[in-house]
Amino acid sequence: MSLLVQKYGGSSVADADRIRAVADHVARTRRAGNDVVVVVSAMGKTTDRLVRLADDVSSVQPNREVDMLLSSGERISMSLLCMALAELGVEATSYTGSQAGIITDAVHTRAKIVEIRADRLRATLDGGGVPVVAGFQGMSLERDVTTLGRGGSDTTAVALAAVLNADVCEIYTDVSGVFSADPRIVPEARKLSRISFEEMLEMAATGGRVLMLRSVEFARNHGVALHVRSSFTWEPGTWVDEEDATMEDAIVTAVTHDVTEAKVTVIGVPDRPGLAAQLFRGLADRHVNVDMIVQNTSLHGTTDISFTVPGYDLAVSTEVCEQLVPVLGASGVTSDADVARVSLVGAGMKTHPGVTALTFETLASAGINIEMISTSSIRISCMVRASAAEEAVRALHAAFDLAG
Amino acid sequence: MSLLVQKYGGSSVADADRIRAVADHVARTRRAGNDVVVVVSAMGKTTDRLVRLADDVSSVQPNREVDMLLSSGERISMSLLCMALAELGVEATSYTGSQAGIITDAVHTRAKIVEIRADRLRATLDGGGVPVVAGFQGMSLERDVTTLGRGGSDTTAVALAAVLNADVCEIYTDVSGVFSADPRIVPEARKLSRISFEEMLEMAATGGRVLMLRSVEFARNHGVALHVRSSFTWEPGTWVDEEDATMEDAIVTAVTHDVTEAKVTVIGVPDRPGLAAQLFRGLADRHVNVDMIVQNTSLHGTTDISFTVPGYDLAVSTEVCEQLVPVLGASGVTSDADVARVSLVGAGMKTHPGVTALTFETLASAGINIEMISTSSIRISCMVRASAAEEAVRALHAAFDLAG
Repeated sequence: MSLLVQKYGGSSVADADRIRAVADHVARTRRAGNDVVVVVSAMGKTTDRLVRLADDVSSVQPNREVDMLLSSGERISMSLLCMALAELGVEATSYTGSQAGIITDAVHTRAKIVEIRADRLRATLDGGGVPVVAGFQGMSLERDVTTLGRGGSDTTAVALAAVLNADVCEIYTDVSGVFSADPRIVPEARKLSRISFEEMLEMAATGGRVLMLRSVEFARNHGVALHVRSSFTWEPGTWVDEEDATMEDAIVTAVTHDVTEAKVTVIGVPDRPGLAAQLFRGLADRHVNVDMIVQNTSLHGTTDISFTVPGYDLAVSTEVCEQLVPVLGASGVTSDADVARVSLVGAGMKTHPGVTALTFETLASAGINIEMISTSSIRISCMVRASAAEEAVRALHAAFDLAG
Repeated sequence: MSLLVQKYGGSSVADADRIRAVADHVARTRRAGNDVVVVVSAMGKTTDRLVRLADDVSSVQPNREVDMLLSSGERISMSLLCMALAELGVEATSYTGSQAGIITDAVHTRAKIVEIRADRLRATLDGGGVPVVAGFQGMSLERDVTTLGRGGSDTTAVALAAVLNADVCEIYTDVSGVFSADPRIVPEARKLSRISFEEMLEMAATGGRVLMLRSVEFARNHGVALHVRSSFTWEPGTWVDEEDATMEDAIVTAVTHDVTEAKVTVIGVPDRPGLAAQLFRGLADRHVNVDMIVQNTSLHGTTDISFTVPGYDLAVSTEVCEQLVPVLGASGVTSDADVARVSLVGAGMKTHPGVTALTFETLASAGINIEMISTSSIRISCMVRASAAEEAVRALHAAFDLAG
């Protein structure tokens, strides 16, 4: 007898028909002899609708009240799912984050789970029932409702799988798994049957949108095997698990891309120690996530410092840099949102040094200029013009024979 | 410095504009030097929408899950209202039923409040803030979400006013108060500036739709003065309070009517002791609220027993009676939904015996037949044909000079 945590995202419970389909799958899983804990997101576009409503009402939105507002969505989807399960003869009980014992810190709209008191869920499982838990939400020690921020329902599911010692955490979504590239751009992209946590982390960080970085980190840290799969076709999807011997073959596993990045350049920075530190301290103080950094060779005693940031941080980054121009004695700031990052990810890169060379040769053959580069032990990222991103993805996918 | 509990119904918070208007009124009340506790219902038709959604999903709807579903509505309205108050510079904090310490029994969909642990609300008031509390909902001792049934938000408001020892409980709605008759039927109907709890109870029980019987009972039992008023015009409304000397003048205060009643007759019941008891025990066992009962004089050893029930109980009542026909030795059952109850309510009736006579004379002059009658010390109710109800209301309103 296995214990499965099944997480269903917003598109999986978008309307009455989808909710009944999910209930049917949960019922089958239960009748196959498994224990099941379900985690649900709010239905489809519910959260967007609530955000618009709040914008209509007030320009001042205390985070505590935003959390109270947004946490209403999962109550709807989870109670409806329990009703659909009741109709199928499956005893199911819904639990809010608070009732499920999900205790968080008090940082509203992006709270972190600090503890899970899963007594009620265990009691429901022991009684043969299916607990249906609201994703994305918890309760602070001050007994206020909190939410976990983007991808929060995945985090809820992984955290419950860890604390309940589940055999697997199934993440149901509207795609059938993790692919070797975005299938909308590379039609021959291959669905990966299994990848390591480390590869999934690099993919999540570089534009693979299926899983949020944070939930993958949580899964890796707690050794929770993930199974990403479709709630529309119900076919087997992609397992995300510890790296093992069977995974060593693939040098490159996938190509990802991200067109939401932007580039900022501070021009004519005097070539003195400590100035770059001052710049990046200023950005860090404004919570900007800087990714790649390139500092040109100094020629006339000054240097240009370029770095990339998420597009939504471009405005604040430019502002910080412009304020620092007189402090640093620099000559100016330019920004460029028309860039994209293309990345190759693969655990086999560690032991195969030829990947960088083939990457450069491939992009050069396609006439694509590489503006910046960053690497990790299992990733190579190249910043290119946004207009060249799709061609770069296709060329690299073909060059590394990722379609299998 | 006064403490006011202000309750806003669904139409008062139906959209962003209405919510901002409510926030403005709360802010004014606060700035006038009063402490304020706000109780809100779900926005406009939210509850209806959720009920339809549940019907789309499943024909089996466990009451616990219905409560979880319906309790999402107030979270939305209360967090939005807190945001609107924040924009006006008023510190407000939303509380779910559970957070507000509203402890109920475990009878889902029609729970009763058993205790209020108002520590958090008191702390917010002591800190100068405005607690905004979800109406209609509470938490059972088993830590499950419960709802209080129809008119539940009024009950929440009255209960909080009682436990916090508030000076008044203001019930804001889409009408400007309690009228001497339904103004849609009697245009010259007068808004009552003050009525007694007893009169309001009789009105609520006989078709006056402004307040639910239960919340008025609660207010009377706990001595909470109510002020029913409009959230659209904000003008002074109707006070509902203990009867006192100033109220003694009016013999008749209002005419109410209710077209949702229905009549059932069991024909040819043998005239033996105990049979009527058996009939009404059978109805009570199915939770039918029987109102008027008339038993015809026995002529040939049998009798016809007629009684009225709420329209929604007609089907089950007829079923119960038909099952009992062979047991009682009766000859049959007829039902009639085409009836209406017209009632006169007034505390002065106790000391003025002529009311019944004038009632009968008035209806007789209008050619309206009285099919059944029931009375209390401050009420006379007549069952008439549904088609004659409005004419009866107008005739009685004029005869007793209620327009003042």
